[in-house]
Amino acid sequence: MDGPIAGTGAHGDHPFYPLGVAVPGYVANSMSAGVLVLIFAAGCGVIFLPTYLVASRARPGLPAGELLIIFWFVLSGCIHLFFEGKVTSPSTPGSSHVSLSAERRQGYFSYNHLNMASKTDLFGQLWKEYSLSDSRYMTQDPFVVCMETVTAVFWGPLSFACAYLIVTEHPLRHPLQLIVSLGQLYGDVLYYAICWFNELVYGIAYSRPEPFYYWMYYVLCNAFWIVIPLMLMYQSVGETAAVFAKVKKAARAGKKTQ
Amino acid sequence: MDGPIAGTGAHGDHPFYPLGVAVPGYVANSMSAGVLVLIFAAGCGVIFLPTYLVASRARPGLPAGELLIIFWFVLSGCIHLFFEGKVTSPSTPGSSHVSLSAERRQGYFSYNHLNMASKTDLFGQLWKEYSLSDSRYMTQDPFVVCMETVTAVFWGPLSFACAYLIVTEHPLRHPLQLIVSLGQLYGDVLYYAICWFNELVYGIAYSRPEPFYYWMYYVLCNAFWIVIPLMLMYQSVGETAAVFAKVKKAARAGKKTQ
Repeated sequence: MDGPIAGTGAHGDHPFYPLGVAVPGYVANSMSAGVLVLIFAAGCGVIFLPTYLVASRARPGLPAGELLIIFWFVLSGCIHLFFEGKVTSPSTPGSSHVSLSAERRQGYFSYNHLNMASKTDLFGQLWKEYSLSDSRYMTQDPFVVCMETVTAVFWGPLSFACAYLIVTEHPLRHPLQLIVSLGQLYGDVLYYAICWFNELVYGIAYSRPEPFYYWMYYVLCNAFWIVIPLMLMYQSVGETAAVFAKVKKAARAGKKTQ
Repeated sequence: MDGPIAGTGAHGDHPFYPLGVAVPGYVANSMSAGVLVLIFAAGCGVIFLPTYLVASRARPGLPAGELLIIFWFVLSGCIHLFFEGKVTSPSTPGSSHVSLSAERRQGYFSYNHLNMASKTDLFGQLWKEYSLSDSRYMTQDPFVVCMETVTAVFWGPLSFACAYLIVTEHPLRHPLQLIVSLGQLYGDVLYYAICWFNELVYGIAYSRPEPFYYWMYYVLCNAFWIVIPLMLMYQSVGETAAVFAKVKKAARAGKKTQ
């Protein structure tokens, strides 16, 4: 996994699967897989220090569990907004799907919006590396683009809002934590499910055949957004039910003493 | 809109769009559109009487607003489970996608699971009528099947659970109402968004060209699951934040008096 995978004969000019999938404008990565993964991991790690400094100053005595949840939401927010947001943002004005509405109105249809494969900036190279495990990011798959747009527009900013609400112990914290976590979970469940459905029913596999890509990129990287949201939903449902029960009990006790 | 639409020359043997879409095994409806819509409306209406009787007996003095929400969840549950569940349930053992996993293991790939179009029972005819506005239900579209499976398996039973929790004034009511409502909303947003993306970017329209089908079936029928879940989420977030604020205030007051 040290160097970028060159195009194979079967594909012609790009390394993505399934065989024969069209990825026009593909430009090979200049950075190796190892370097890209390291940069991504370092980028994630770098977020934690300022988050810790701000959060611990704003809420002294912050429990460790709460700090971990703040880390999670800040990291999620950064990935949703700055990394996943890239999936849906145009790189060349006038050539992305975002501007196609205007182009369609002019009666002009273009496939220029398939430009993920030609991006050579850091995020573009990261996406090309990840797409070895799921080529739907290279082909502007309708589900992937729509789900990633909802994620970047809603779950991204709302993740930061969740971190803020935890720091300030705001009454809106648990409803919002529940909304963001279910949003992440449901998007991810559909992301996995549609891929497996396509493989099982239509025989279309979007990952390269090497197990590394499938298990380490596709399965592992996305599993975080199944496991952690489930835990946070469990917490929010529990805490919310507990306060409703408390208020109800207090109201009953109040009635009895009247 | 009185009789079933016959196949046109352009399609060959079925009335669904886009032109040229494959709908093998299509059997024309024997019931007219008007009769099917009436039966569906009557079926929805019939649910309300027993719901009203059970709910008003179990919780005397039930406010009208709460009764309307109970109606909504019972109706939603019935539609998700009994109607939408049909999209993902096999009609002929061994011929549906559910059993394809076994067939694939035996090295046998079949398109027999595309059997929605051949169903002639009431729900089959209803789906064929609705599919005039969205052929994805006739072609086992991966997103539609996966989203409808999640809806039938989770939001269906949980809708009934919500109705029960409202009747019993249970502390879990608002967290669950928030989960089910966001689940319905997000599924519906993706359902609309992917369809529009396909039309805008790839020029694929799944509805027949007559405005009636697009606006009355596709837009109107699904809009309920945008508007009402948003209202219920607003209610649940508000109620939840209010009790958290109340408990926090009481805790502060308790500290001061100590």
